[in-house]
Amino acid sequence: MSTQQRIIFFISDSTGITVEKLGRSLLSQFPDIDFQRISLRYVDSVDKVAKAREEIEAAAKNSGKPPIVLSSLAQPALREALKTDAAVVLDVFGTFLDLLEVPLQQKASHAAGHAHRVAEPGAYMARMDAVNYALRYDDGLGGPNYGRADVILLGVSRSGKTPVCLYLAMQYGLFAANYPLVDDDLQTTSLPSVLQPFRTKLFGLTIEPQRLQKIRARRYSGRDYADLGQCRREVARAEALFAANQLPVLDTTVVSVEEIATQILAQMQMNP
Amino acid sequence: MSTQQRIIFFISDSTGITVEKLGRSLLSQFPDIDFQRISLRYVDSVDKVAKAREEIEAAAKNSGKPPIVLSSLAQPALREALKTDAAVVLDVFGTFLDLLEVPLQQKASHAAGHAHRVAEPGAYMARMDAVNYALRYDDGLGGPNYGRADVILLGVSRSGKTPVCLYLAMQYGLFAANYPLVDDDLQTTSLPSVLQPFRTKLFGLTIEPQRLQKIRARRYSGRDYADLGQCRREVARAEALFAANQLPVLDTTVVSVEEIATQILAQMQMNP
Repeated sequence: MSTQQRIIFFISDSTGITVEKLGRSLLSQFPDIDFQRISLRYVDSVDKVAKAREEIEAAAKNSGKPPIVLSSLAQPALREALKTDAAVVLDVFGTFLDLLEVPLQQKASHAAGHAHRVAEPGAYMARMDAVNYALRYDDGLGGPNYGRADVILLGVSRSGKTPVCLYLAMQYGLFAANYPLVDDDLQTTSLPSVLQPFRTKLFGLTIEPQRLQKIRARRYSGRDYADLGQCRREVARAEALFAANQLPVLDTTVVSVEEIATQILAQMQMNP
Repeated sequence: MSTQQRIIFFISDSTGITVEKLGRSLLSQFPDIDFQRISLRYVDSVDKVAKAREEIEAAAKNSGKPPIVLSSLAQPALREALKTDAAVVLDVFGTFLDLLEVPLQQKASHAAGHAHRVAEPGAYMARMDAVNYALRYDDGLGGPNYGRADVILLGVSRSGKTPVCLYLAMQYGLFAANYPLVDDDLQTTSLPSVLQPFRTKLFGLTIEPQRLQKIRARRYSGRDYADLGQCRREVARAEALFAANQLPVLDTTVVSVEEIATQILAQMQMNP
C-alpha cells in the first residue's frame, strides 16, 4: 500500500490550541495519509508571517507537494501576508468571521486574537482557587471539604481521578474532589459514610483491569497493588458499589482526560 | 447604547472543546453584541440532534431572532439533521472537510469524531507519567529529579508555576518541574546551585506585585507573605536574578494558563 505523505502547518497568532485541535479532528478523517505536522505559534506580526510563509514555501519545494496550511489569524493584514501559491492556505478564523458578519449585521472588530487573555481577573482567581482545591484535596489528603465540591469522583487507585479533577478545575473552574476507593470501602456496596451527604455530586470512574494493571505496574512493580487478580477484584467491587447506588459511571480505559471531563459535564448536566 | 442580544449554540458530537474555543475567539470580534451561550456536548445520534434542533427552534421563537449555531459534527447524517430555517447553522467540521477533500484528492472517511480518543495507549501513559511527575515534584517536594525535566519553571510563591506545569503535562506530555524562589535564593542574583546544571531548561515567571498580593491574601491573610512591600521586594529580586542569568521570562499577570504554557513552548522552541 502506498501511503500518501503530506506536510500540514498549523499557524496561529495566539496559542494555536484551537487550530491544532480542529486540525487533529479533520486529519483523523483521512487515515490513509501520513501527515507531518508543524506548529507555529504566536505568529502575530507581518514579519513573523513572512518568515512562516518562507518556511511553507521551502517545505513545498522540498516535498514536491503543496503543504496544507490551517491558520487562525485575527488580523486581515496577517491573513493577506500568509497567502502563497505554493500551499493550500485555509484560515479558520477568517472563514467563519466572514460567515458571521452577515447574520450578525456587524463588521468584526479585527482586533488581534486575545481570546485566551485573562479578561476578568475575578474569573482567573476562581479558576486558580479551583486548581488549588483539586491539589489540596487530591486523594482525600488533608480532610477534604466535600461540601465545597461541585463534583466528587470515585474510583480505585489509578483509575484516572486526579488528572480529571485538575482538568475540570483549570478549564471550567469547577471544584472537583476525588475519593479513592480502598479495600475497606470495597468490602461492601454501601457508600462510604463521609460521602453519603453528597450523593448528587458523585461520579464513578472505572477502567479495564488489564489496563489498570499496566498503569499500576509502572508505578510500583512487584507488589499486590499491580497484580491482575487484585485489579480485577477491586474493579468488580467498585462497579458493584456504583451500581448499588445508581451512580453515573464512565469507563476511562480508552478515553482521554478532556473527554472524561466533558462527559462528566454532559452527564451531570453542568454548563460552566 | 442599545446592546444587541443574540443566542449562540455550540453543538458537538464530542467534547465541544474545539468549537467552544473557536466560538469564543470569533465572538470576541463582536464586542457590541451580548451573546448568550448554550453548549450541547456529545450530540452523537440523529435523535440527539433532533432534540438539539427543537431547542434551537424554541430559542428562535422566544427570542424573536435566529440563533447562531456553531457545530462540529463529523457524520454527514448528523449535519443534515441539524439543518433548520430558524437559525444560522455553521458547521466547522463540514466546512473544512469539504475544503480539504479537493487538495488531498481523497474523500473523508466520515467516521464519528473521535479525535480525543486514546489512539495510542503508549502516548496516553506518557502523558499520565508527565502529570504524575508534575504532581510529585510540585514546589520542590521530595527532592526533584530535574534531570528528567523538559522545562523547569522558576518564580516566587504564587506566581503561577503549578498550574502551568500541570497544563504542559496534560496537554503536551512534557515533564515540567518547578522551583520556588524563596528568601534564601533571593539574597543573591546567582542561580541556586541545584539548578546550575540545567540552565537551558530554565524559564522564569514573574507577576505584578499588586496582583501577587491579592492572590496571596486569598490564601494566607494577615501575614508578611501577603504584604505588598514583601511582594514588591520578592518580585524585584526574582526579576534581577532572571536578568543576571539571561533567562527567558514571562509576566503572568494578565495571561491565562494555556497562554503561558504555549508561550513557553514558542520561546523554548519546543514542538511536542
